[in-house]
Amino acid sequence: MTMESSPAWLALQEELRQVGKKTIREFFQEDTQRFERFSLEAAGLFLDYSKNRIRPHTMEVLMDLAAQAHVEDRRDRMFRGDAINNTEGRAVLHTALRQRGDDPVVVDGHNVIPDIRASLARLRQFSDDVRSGRIKGIGGEPFTDVVNIGIGGSDLGGVMTCEALKPFSDGPRCHFVSNVDSSHLTETLKRLDWQKTLFVIASKTFTTQETMTNARSAREWFLNQGAREADISQHFAAVSTNLEATASFGIAADRVFGFWDWVGGRYSIWSAIGLPLILAIGMDRFEEFLTGAWEMDTHFRQAPLERNMPVVLAVLGVWYRDFFGAESHAVLPYDQYLHRFPAYLQQLDMESNGKRVTRDGTVIPFATGPIVWGEPGTNGQHAFFQLIHQGQSLIPADFLAAANPQHPLGDHHRILMSNFLAQTEALMNGRSAEEVRRELEESGLSEEQMATLIPHRVFPGNKPTNSILFKTLDPRTLGALIALYEHKVFVQGCIWDINSFDQWGVELGKKLAGVILPQLKDDAAVVDHDASTNGLINQYKAWRN
Amino acid sequence: MTMESSPAWLALQEELRQVGKKTIREFFQEDTQRFERFSLEAAGLFLDYSKNRIRPHTMEVLMDLAAQAHVEDRRDRMFRGDAINNTEGRAVLHTALRQRGDDPVVVDGHNVIPDIRASLARLRQFSDDVRSGRIKGIGGEPFTDVVNIGIGGSDLGGVMTCEALKPFSDGPRCHFVSNVDSSHLTETLKRLDWQKTLFVIASKTFTTQETMTNARSAREWFLNQGAREADISQHFAAVSTNLEATASFGIAADRVFGFWDWVGGRYSIWSAIGLPLILAIGMDRFEEFLTGAWEMDTHFRQAPLERNMPVVLAVLGVWYRDFFGAESHAVLPYDQYLHRFPAYLQQLDMESNGKRVTRDGTVIPFATGPIVWGEPGTNGQHAFFQLIHQGQSLIPADFLAAANPQHPLGDHHRILMSNFLAQTEALMNGRSAEEVRRELEESGLSEEQMATLIPHRVFPGNKPTNSILFKTLDPRTLGALIALYEHKVFVQGCIWDINSFDQWGVELGKKLAGVILPQLKDDAAVVDHDASTNGLINQYKAWRN
Repeated sequence: MTMESSPAWLALQEELRQVGKKTIREFFQEDTQRFERFSLEAAGLFLDYSKNRIRPHTMEVLMDLAAQAHVEDRRDRMFRGDAINNTEGRAVLHTALRQRGDDPVVVDGHNVIPDIRASLARLRQFSDDVRSGRIKGIGGEPFTDVVNIGIGGSDLGGVMTCEALKPFSDGPRCHFVSNVDSSHLTETLKRLDWQKTLFVIASKTFTTQETMTNARSAREWFLNQGAREADISQHFAAVSTNLEATASFGIAADRVFGFWDWVGGRYSIWSAIGLPLILAIGMDRFEEFLTGAWEMDTHFRQAPLERNMPVVLAVLGVWYRDFFGAESHAVLPYDQYLHRFPAYLQQLDMESNGKRVTRDGTVIPFATGPIVWGEPGTNGQHAFFQLIHQGQSLIPADFLAAANPQHPLGDHHRILMSNFLAQTEALMNGRSAEEVRRELEESGLSEEQMATLIPHRVFPGNKPTNSILFKTLDPRTLGALIALYEHKVFVQGCIWDINSFDQWGVELGKKLAGVILPQLKDDAAVVDHDASTNGLINQYKAWRN
Repeated sequence: MTMESSPAWLALQEELRQVGKKTIREFFQEDTQRFERFSLEAAGLFLDYSKNRIRPHTMEVLMDLAAQAHVEDRRDRMFRGDAINNTEGRAVLHTALRQRGDDPVVVDGHNVIPDIRASLARLRQFSDDVRSGRIKGIGGEPFTDVVNIGIGGSDLGGVMTCEALKPFSDGPRCHFVSNVDSSHLTETLKRLDWQKTLFVIASKTFTTQETMTNARSAREWFLNQGAREADISQHFAAVSTNLEATASFGIAADRVFGFWDWVGGRYSIWSAIGLPLILAIGMDRFEEFLTGAWEMDTHFRQAPLERNMPVVLAVLGVWYRDFFGAESHAVLPYDQYLHRFPAYLQQLDMESNGKRVTRDGTVIPFATGPIVWGEPGTNGQHAFFQLIHQGQSLIPADFLAAANPQHPLGDHHRILMSNFLAQTEALMNGRSAEEVRRELEESGLSEEQMATLIPHRVFPGNKPTNSILFKTLDPRTLGALIALYEHKVFVQGCIWDINSFDQWGVELGKKLAGVILPQLKDDAAVVDHDASTNGLINQYKAWRN
């Protein structure tokens, strides 16, 4: 039986017709318990999902869909270390990285928990030594700046978390270089004192093209400033498993931090990839970050499906993606420190579920992972909210906010919250032509002027949103928040029967770039691609200095 | 006759069926002139649009659609100052701001060109004085830092252009505070010396809630550092037309720079809203920026539709949005300095064309403005490209790159370009199961292992892209690039018969926030909204300190 011919899927098609007859506003009028029914709290996060195009029966059928996809069984298999990444034959155990307590997690007959703890102990020692100034630069002074060189999963988690937890940062300043565009490295190094800068080269294989190109240029910059080859080992660390390559780069073995093949790049912030964050906030706070994630893990493992926050978010996403045809999902943090959270989720979600075949390779006939996008509120309100309110696409959106600001200041936070609250209200309720008319009647406009304006000022409303509220954006809350989305993505992967843990779609471009690169060395005309690629290459050659 | 029953629209529905029978790859095989046919150069930009799902006849019918929408006539009406923003009764003349030469542009019987030149002269004088140190802070030292406080159109243009043109910046460092979240202002001020900091408050009405909240807090911070009320006039400037409010804030009249009601917020970077950029790069370079835009304006006014770059991009967007059902459009600059370009275009495009009614108020039965999103390459390749290559959505994408880097360094730029070139090639060609099999046959995998892997490694290809190449990202090129997208959005607005210059969709949320704000002052339970909004307000009150 295929998913799209399953009982739950067919029931949802019928449910779509029923739900389509009413607006969210009407559902509220009918059901005084709707808010209590459709809200829940877990791991310090409060989720209100009552402003969705659902009624109680909708959630029941969506939960049938989750059950039918064996979500609980698959979840348990992930947590116990089965090789659920079937195309690469690997376990998926980022959850083990944050497990509190010593319950064994066994991969190929080996309990990985002691390995994880040993890694954390090494990271604690090293980060304590850097932060306290016991480990110094060659000038004899403590490190003031850390430059992480990595890309994708070796970059976005660090960037996002270091920004999000900036108020908790009391270690060296962290900088992130990812793009192979030389501007990224050049702009970053411009501001730094080479004798007080520690480089962290983050690449599991130590072969990633962008990362190694930037790493070699950083190394050269360091030497050009006056350092000797022997100083490399004092100013460079690595997060990698390739000990041979790190050694030949000049990095001492005790400054190389590894992780395991059961940690995917986009799930690796909990591992040694978190080193920049650990250096910034210290290991104690990093442990709180792990604890927050573990609390969400525990909720995800224990709560029944219908009260399970990641499951609820996941099935709502499937509801809009597959039954309403929504191509995208907006993430709108009303928190400036979360300004890179949407970019982080882009990788987490789109690289995991942006797939077209099931785990066994069957082409999927329905929509899978959405486009994830967003910017912080209130900024977005002055940019793209126009389209969410009055455009032609249904854009389900998550609104996020902290009840308490990091920097209490005048009326700022109340104003921020009033906007956070008002937007989901406006998106749901909309404004009818009659309401606009009543408002305009007091304005002294002529009947003709009113008739012209009214349709432009109508808001159709009935736009679905989730609101996620938390007390304060601290390490623990951030850990829970990331884990929430990780598990949401996992559950959607189960429902769509996708392997959410491989990324074959990044291979082809890389391969073709490898063919083109040597063709750019000289000025000879290139003729062996399609006419467009040839033409672009030759235009580039004509225009470069 | 409505658009969707027009001859061109019906012809495009038939054309969709014809084009659907072939892949882009096959179109290249059939037509050796395809690259020459479907590429063009204007204002220093080279556009290759041959990797699209089009054949020559498609472009002819799309141009019929543009002609049928009277694009040329509407364009001419915009440039000559007609009140084409019909719901607000205003002309739309951001193009006049960058006009080179003295041809009169008349609004309500008044030639605005001398006004514009007078404004530029004032901006030149002021920026020269700040940059040279003739205008100083109260400590007697030149300004080292400028903090622009604005939001939406009074922020994104400045942020984006100051980042894009950083290599040309030799003036004070510019910072941008937009979010009403106090973290934004607090983090920014942390790093600044109050005696060397100039604030620019950018709000046309001087009433924007976020901006005025941040402005008042900045003013308070300045006074708390030790300044007197009388010093305000030395450290604050404004971009506004509300002379009364700026005066009562303490800003001297000669530090207030105005603009006109025929300049929309998202089209205002060419006006005094460009002040931070002018302070950063100087007026001479800002004039180059204007010149670049003017060159694109000239191309847009003079080139026949079928060789008109903004028109070509516009009709291709309509093709995918309305006939292929693509909800989004990706913008992927292979240039780290353009990292905020997608965010800038989000406002430009989504606030302009995220509308559901025509200019005369008729509800539109087809799709209008797309969701615009993107991140710089090569970063995106390691994040969301998986979904573009192997996901279920058609995502038309613009790839942008400069032939020459700002900072020549080793092999960086060649690697960057090889990726820029390879991605569009990969998206178009894809990789068939047979090709995967041939590659895997050399890998020593068993037949069973191969059979398992092959479907996961297939790329369907046939994904449409535009490539935009330029020599160097300098002020002139950036001006042309922004103007290109402005006019693209304009042409799409014509085709969809939208007023691209109002933004009624931002009103309702603002209004409801005004209702909620006073309800947050005390801890009393709130009961007069829907149950969800009440519940969220009360949860917030319970959780705040």
